[in-house]
Amino acid sequence: MDERLRQQMEFILEVDKIKKIGRQTYLHDASRKENDAEHSWHLALMCILLKEYSNQDIDVLKTISMVLIHDIVEIDAGDTYAYDIAANTTKRERELKAADRIFNILPKDQAQWMRQLWDEFEEGKTPEAKFALTLDKVQPLMLNDATDGRAWREHNVHCDSVYKRNKNTGDGAKVLWEYAKELIERNIEKKNLRSGDA
Amino acid sequence: MDERLRQQMEFILEVDKIKKIGRQTYLHDASRKENDAEHSWHLALMCILLKEYSNQDIDVLKTISMVLIHDIVEIDAGDTYAYDIAANTTKRERELKAADRIFNILPKDQAQWMRQLWDEFEEGKTPEAKFALTLDKVQPLMLNDATDGRAWREHNVHCDSVYKRNKNTGDGAKVLWEYAKELIERNIEKKNLRSGDA
Repeated sequence: MDERLRQQMEFILEVDKIKKIGRQTYLHDASRKENDAEHSWHLALMCILLKEYSNQDIDVLKTISMVLIHDIVEIDAGDTYAYDIAANTTKRERELKAADRIFNILPKDQAQWMRQLWDEFEEGKTPEAKFALTLDKVQPLMLNDATDGRAWREHNVHCDSVYKRNKNTGDGAKVLWEYAKELIERNIEKKNLRSGDA
Repeated sequence: MDERLRQQMEFILEVDKIKKIGRQTYLHDASRKENDAEHSWHLALMCILLKEYSNQDIDVLKTISMVLIHDIVEIDAGDTYAYDIAANTTKRERELKAADRIFNILPKDQAQWMRQLWDEFEEGKTPEAKFALTLDKVQPLMLNDATDGRAWREHNVHCDSVYKRNKNTGDGAKVLWEYAKELIERNIEKKNLRSGDA
């Protein structure tokens, strides 16, 4: 087999491991938590269906590519729960090391392309990265709402943390952030999220 | 909330159910079988990385969209194992009914777009559909090989069935079919697939 194809197939098999990286968000019926592959599939589909709400014109293929690969580093670094302060201090270092190992399984041109795409997502400055980050935040909010705040209640999350974490969510798509804010407020009312001094 | 956005978000939540539609293929480590969301994520990523092997020029965004949605009908129709002859006689009818219900949750323009895309995939005649179908066949072959033919051995599959099922796999990408044939032959040698009168 050609060396280029061998590297590509080795990578494609390696990233199968993402199906075993668990997240904190429950599925719609709260039967279990979702994993990174499922989450990434969901974001890619959302990107196609919701692209009309992007604040700026985006390259849709680039944005989908970004969401499909954005969590691959978690194969080595693990999923870091958004509201786990200690784990978040070492997150960046762990993920950079993972990017070095995993992306470099690919042929050099594709490894460089993927690294640049992931860096762009992480920096969050381009229209594509902003929209991808908006989707990445809105999807778990939607599932949290569908499960009556299951993950929030288990982790005793305060609404201030949710708002702080979502301070840039409107940068990608104002309309989707308005939708998300309604969900958050509804879950504050239902006491699925703590508020005030509670 | 705007009615259009409400329909879009209702669809996006509805298709979360695809994460619970199990397939017969095992993950790389045979720890469990994969589901349709994970499989679709894998095909979308393969599409980006392997597009250079398509026999014909393809619209990559269209092909990715196709693989992301190709199994959504299984939310109602269930996954039909490739080598289950009885279940395959009713597959088409079940899937058409599912397409009518699920895609129509979307706003009319997006429902029509998705139905056309799914029909195109099912017909398998355009360059995009051919390449998508090749990926859809190569991915489980890769995982079957990685797990030493686990699913094949459990179902006592004969190599003739595999070759018959893959009679069009080369139509999308000759190079990937050559790769897949090597995998099949290796698994015949290892007796993970039956051959001859065995």
